[in-house]
Amino acid sequence: MRQSKLFTKTRKETPVDEISKNAQLLIKAGFIYKEMSGVYAMLPLGLLTLNKIINIIREEMNGIGGQELSLTALQEKELWEKTNRWDDAVVDNWFKTKLKNDTEVGLGFTHEEPLTRLMKDHISSYRDLPLYAYQFQTKFRNEIRAKSGIMRTREFIMKDLYSFSKDEKEHMEFYEKAKQAYKNIFVRAGLGDLTYLTFASGGVFSKYSHEFQTISDSGEDIVYINKDDLGAGLNMDSRHAVLNKEVYTEEVKKELNLSGDFEENKAVEVGNIFTLGTRFSEALGLTYKDEDGKEVPVFMGSYGIGPARLMGVIAEVFSDDKGLVWPREVAPYEVHLVKLGVNPEVSDFADRLYEDLKSKGVSVLYDDRDLRPGEKFADSDLIGIPVRFVVSDKTLAVEKIEVKYRNKTDTELMLEADALKILN
Amino acid sequence: MRQSKLFTKTRKETPVDEISKNAQLLIKAGFIYKEMSGVYAMLPLGLLTLNKIINIIREEMNGIGGQELSLTALQEKELWEKTNRWDDAVVDNWFKTKLKNDTEVGLGFTHEEPLTRLMKDHISSYRDLPLYAYQFQTKFRNEIRAKSGIMRTREFIMKDLYSFSKDEKEHMEFYEKAKQAYKNIFVRAGLGDLTYLTFASGGVFSKYSHEFQTISDSGEDIVYINKDDLGAGLNMDSRHAVLNKEVYTEEVKKELNLSGDFEENKAVEVGNIFTLGTRFSEALGLTYKDEDGKEVPVFMGSYGIGPARLMGVIAEVFSDDKGLVWPREVAPYEVHLVKLGVNPEVSDFADRLYEDLKSKGVSVLYDDRDLRPGEKFADSDLIGIPVRFVVSDKTLAVEKIEVKYRNKTDTELMLEADALKILN
Repeated sequence: MRQSKLFTKTRKETPVDEISKNAQLLIKAGFIYKEMSGVYAMLPLGLLTLNKIINIIREEMNGIGGQELSLTALQEKELWEKTNRWDDAVVDNWFKTKLKNDTEVGLGFTHEEPLTRLMKDHISSYRDLPLYAYQFQTKFRNEIRAKSGIMRTREFIMKDLYSFSKDEKEHMEFYEKAKQAYKNIFVRAGLGDLTYLTFASGGVFSKYSHEFQTISDSGEDIVYINKDDLGAGLNMDSRHAVLNKEVYTEEVKKELNLSGDFEENKAVEVGNIFTLGTRFSEALGLTYKDEDGKEVPVFMGSYGIGPARLMGVIAEVFSDDKGLVWPREVAPYEVHLVKLGVNPEVSDFADRLYEDLKSKGVSVLYDDRDLRPGEKFADSDLIGIPVRFVVSDKTLAVEKIEVKYRNKTDTELMLEADALKILN
Repeated sequence: MRQSKLFTKTRKETPVDEISKNAQLLIKAGFIYKEMSGVYAMLPLGLLTLNKIINIIREEMNGIGGQELSLTALQEKELWEKTNRWDDAVVDNWFKTKLKNDTEVGLGFTHEEPLTRLMKDHISSYRDLPLYAYQFQTKFRNEIRAKSGIMRTREFIMKDLYSFSKDEKEHMEFYEKAKQAYKNIFVRAGLGDLTYLTFASGGVFSKYSHEFQTISDSGEDIVYINKDDLGAGLNMDSRHAVLNKEVYTEEVKKELNLSGDFEENKAVEVGNIFTLGTRFSEALGLTYKDEDGKEVPVFMGSYGIGPARLMGVIAEVFSDDKGLVWPREVAPYEVHLVKLGVNPEVSDFADRLYEDLKSKGVSVLYDDRDLRPGEKFADSDLIGIPVRFVVSDKTLAVEKIEVKYRNKTDTELMLEADALKILN
């Protein structure tokens, strides 16, 4: 993409109505637009990064046998009454609206109910199980406060996978696979060192659930980590457990056989996996005939990740005072090619390099604008593409490219062939 | 995809609560699920086809310089009041809901307003124009009747592109490009012969707009086509104009210099392109400084296509009494590989062929189920993948594959190498 054509502009001023670092930076860099409190549009750069995250998640969900579908936002009252989740006294974040004939409908904040009902068309025998269905679909949640930028919004895409198994044993086999797939996602998104598999309350569904918590001062959660494990992230869970504050009691510590010094950390819940059991299948009549011909309720689990929240956390934890710093797999472009000056030979070289990179399948943002170097570098740092190639009179004189990583300070002059190698 | 793993099952019975052919067939074949009247979920096969259509549209929009973003469903009352489109007396298909603090918000049925406001951050000079932004985003429309299956729903993904130009002249240059891109889309989706560029009312925005209308008995619109042009579809618009009933008057015919016998046809509006002029930019203050430093309102256009409606029309016009018949570019899979019988040698051959096709980048639905041939062929016809490869004792004996096109009746025994060639 030629930056002269990219319609979004960066801005110098920090938006005064934002207190969260992720929203401030993402707005300044032209990744997102605030429609209203807790409601953000994705601009081209933001959508590119969001889609990179979505694709990582999709690959990992397909890898464990997930089948993608897409459910609807509009939800029937009668369906949710069957599981006792329609009442605003039970679920406090519904958005509700009405059809023209005055029928009340809700906007889905999650999708256990409709998917369980749908599966009644497709599950009847033990031979149909297990199966796993997931989607990237817009959830609506009527949050009272929405002050965390894109980490907690009223409208957001969520990846929610639901598992349907014959029994708890079959369920747990998949649950462990899902855990591993989730680890892969956070490692690929660059958050491996900062993210911990965490014991949390199972709510009404089961004794415990597992959360993936990323250490960040921007977090709304408190987790307890053994001091020896700090910094180890997803590599550590074979050593000690991490506990969400809600289950950090002497009783639980004893049950899990935990000792040592635990330290309190602020963290953001970036994913969670839940054993649902038969709560929904029993309420909605989703059963299967087992090998003896007996009708048995399907054993379920749910597995959620908010791609935009993940994007927000990445913006929070990797940014510096100059702007965003994207990990390689989630960056909107792989390379920021910056041309300096107005020398036609430099322009020709940069144009040629741009086409060459594209033809090799490298995604490039090409700053071909006639601006002062200082402005270009400031924009480049703000946008945060991981690798910068600078082409100028100086680099052309030695027939090289100046290469700089966004997360390092030094630059290096490299031959084009060598510069290309670092992208693999 | 191995069909034994695909969780959706076909069904023999036609759903009793559906009167539209597209919904009946798509539900029977396991492409969609009816959540409630006018609200359909996309099952894996449906999502594959929908995404094929979306990708065609995306390629064509990128080809004319469109930049993809994603706006929000939740909409601010104050914004829409500025253009006089909040009032239910003016716009009769709003869904409205409330934030926790009782602030009324709407669910976007279109996005001129939010995008025009957003562009105030990015357009200030004539140097910023023209620019084109588009999205695939969920619209909500509170339809009174919703009896056309996925052709008219209360919740659907829409591709909406908006153009921002300096003046009408610059606008019209893009408008013509958009027209061509739309033609490409309908031709690629297989609808070229049945789809006509149609003069329609410009509504409150301009004298005329252009619609793309696909001839189908399922259509809600009436268009008038010169008899000589019937069947010519998008190849004909250089000859005579096609008129929507709303502008089919002697006055308009005279103005457009039309003569000859016009025939009334039922048709489905599959796309429309609109000149908006400065209606929104003036109301919302989207101006730019021209070369003389004067503030001028931006000249706008809008360009819409509903991918699911397109999918519904394709299901209507190409299906036969056995089921769906997908055109190549929008089929969920390129090949339906059907293994007959339980002979292990046949299974080995089919398994090997499946892996081989996948490794060559061919997308395959592989019916590896132990069912009777009749059931398998019925499912295959219902699902409607364009090419079928059958492997059986009979074909193995001659070391060939039985090849059949869904839209033809004859079969042919072919060597594997020859069968592969027809996929290109």
